[in-house]
Amino acid sequence: MFTAQSLRHFTEQIFLSIGFTEADATLAATVLISADLRGVDSHGIARLAGYVRLHDHGRLNATPNIKIVHQTPSTAVVDGDRGVGLVVGPKTMQIAIEKAQNVGSGWVSVQNSNHFGIAGYHAMLALEHGMIGMAMTNAAPLVAPTFSLDRLLGTNPIAVAVPAHEEPPFVADFASTAVAYGKLEILQRKQQPIPSGWAQDSSGQSTDDANAIKNGGALLPLGSDRAHGSHKGYGLGAIVDIFSGVLSGANYGPWVPPFATAGFMNADQQQVGQGTGHFFGAMRVDGFRPADDFKRHMDNWIRTFRSAKAVEGKRVLVPGDPEREIEAQRLQAGIPLLDPVVQSLEELGKRFGVSL
Amino acid sequence: MFTAQSLRHFTEQIFLSIGFTEADATLAATVLISADLRGVDSHGIARLAGYVRLHDHGRLNATPNIKIVHQTPSTAVVDGDRGVGLVVGPKTMQIAIEKAQNVGSGWVSVQNSNHFGIAGYHAMLALEHGMIGMAMTNAAPLVAPTFSLDRLLGTNPIAVAVPAHEEPPFVADFASTAVAYGKLEILQRKQQPIPSGWAQDSSGQSTDDANAIKNGGALLPLGSDRAHGSHKGYGLGAIVDIFSGVLSGANYGPWVPPFATAGFMNADQQQVGQGTGHFFGAMRVDGFRPADDFKRHMDNWIRTFRSAKAVEGKRVLVPGDPEREIEAQRLQAGIPLLDPVVQSLEELGKRFGVSL
Repeated sequence: MFTAQSLRHFTEQIFLSIGFTEADATLAATVLISADLRGVDSHGIARLAGYVRLHDHGRLNATPNIKIVHQTPSTAVVDGDRGVGLVVGPKTMQIAIEKAQNVGSGWVSVQNSNHFGIAGYHAMLALEHGMIGMAMTNAAPLVAPTFSLDRLLGTNPIAVAVPAHEEPPFVADFASTAVAYGKLEILQRKQQPIPSGWAQDSSGQSTDDANAIKNGGALLPLGSDRAHGSHKGYGLGAIVDIFSGVLSGANYGPWVPPFATAGFMNADQQQVGQGTGHFFGAMRVDGFRPADDFKRHMDNWIRTFRSAKAVEGKRVLVPGDPEREIEAQRLQAGIPLLDPVVQSLEELGKRFGVSL
Repeated sequence: MFTAQSLRHFTEQIFLSIGFTEADATLAATVLISADLRGVDSHGIARLAGYVRLHDHGRLNATPNIKIVHQTPSTAVVDGDRGVGLVVGPKTMQIAIEKAQNVGSGWVSVQNSNHFGIAGYHAMLALEHGMIGMAMTNAAPLVAPTFSLDRLLGTNPIAVAVPAHEEPPFVADFASTAVAYGKLEILQRKQQPIPSGWAQDSSGQSTDDANAIKNGGALLPLGSDRAHGSHKGYGLGAIVDIFSGVLSGANYGPWVPPFATAGFMNADQQQVGQGTGHFFGAMRVDGFRPADDFKRHMDNWIRTFRSAKAVEGKRVLVPGDPEREIEAQRLQAGIPLLDPVVQSLEELGKRFGVSL
């Protein structure tokens, strides 16, 4: 078990070692470790070595000049200047929030970024301003649209955070696929079959082979197959891709560059834009109705759903409940890390003279 | 087979008969018949008798005073004054478009409306202004959140329309459920079983009984079960409900009033707001990057997806393709109507002295 504080400190030191400013290293570490705290282990410190590898390959600028390329009072495109998404994200979200303060809402599409950690972190930045926050990002192609053999979309997540009054906020944060790639990787490691409806093989048939994606297969969109609405999950992933990639001038579809996962890296890849794309939004609740009215009704919404009659042995959760429960637990008990993750951190520590 | 023109004319006459202005009757008829043209038969003229029944029950105001209740430069809440959603929708979308013209984007949440037809129609109104359009609506509860026995959400659809250059636009328009209720009704009529993953029975188990919903069951969110991401479909439906209902001051969750389908009507129902809620958005493409650049890349996006290698015997479609193909066909060959629908129209015609 590791404390959040120690993991954050370690991460900060590593980012400082590759040339980040003090402020950016702190911010990036906070965003990254928020994933470990919230139980989204695949997007936390397990990826730290990946970010360093991006930097090694010249794909990550440690001191980016993040700037607005074009704007109207409520919209903008931001150039992330190949900065780490963990820093580009919150800084861009800040621009969306400022626009919302001025004209009711703000919407910012980002080019020239890379992996931004968990979408929920960025969306939740709006909450402290009494706003609804949204964050989405495109990602390297792992997903086949309905009836496609080609992988054309990433897992393209969407997060929406909504403030309440007495209740904790509503925070939905989900990929537009049937399952997160991380869950499939777990079964790969255990050499176990995967449930049908998660992935297809190279001929487009649903498969129980956890390694299908390495052999010409693909993840399936939310809905799994046409009869269960996979065209809707595909549509959702497509919207995320268009808002994040096409609107910003980033790459989109099959051209989104891979994260630094070994074997997926290809420096000569064709480009149709700059880096990875994100899309952020902020809406002032009181741009619609008095904030107190809204938050009181959100309390009612949340309580109504949470107290729904449930299937035996289960609870009905409100989006954000599971992550908040894990966070409370891990703040107390610490964060567990898998052995290979600890090993990767020790290697980083050794390389940069930082102790875990 | 009926021509779109004749169905539109008939619909217009019926709406005039219950007191609509000439302009509103024309608009409502255009929106309603656009569903029949695009192949979304469940949301077209088949519902005309339902709208009349809403009016009979005092739940539909033929001459609403649709007005902005509160606004900022990029946001607003509109009171639909119990007008028909088919009219409230386009008028509100117009407000969103005007806000986008002024400050880059416009977002309008609507209270005190009812069924607005197909979401795609409203989203597509933005296209002629070179904007991205969005439309969503909440609806009467038919859907159980993950692990819930209670029905707390409607089929809550989302539509997003994106302009391209040479290619026809991208138009995603889908419910946040595994399947549309209309598809289940078809199998009810045929007395056939439904695929597992569409609905649950009163104990929360997946069922193949097409009538389960009438007996304490529920539709399932997109994703069908927890292992295949039903919590994501639930999250999506919840976002639509919050943006449409809680943000506007309409009803939300289990309180959204039913459409006028017999057996679902309950005038004494408890209320937490005014009528049904919608949410509309418009974003100027050139609020982000030059419109020509954007549209050229959308052409590339669309062509890339449409030309993906497909499963044998199938094509990869771009959202909007199927509806556009059906529309082209029905403009030529006419619109087929089921016998019970024709019968309901004949009854309306008889009542109001209008011939089909």
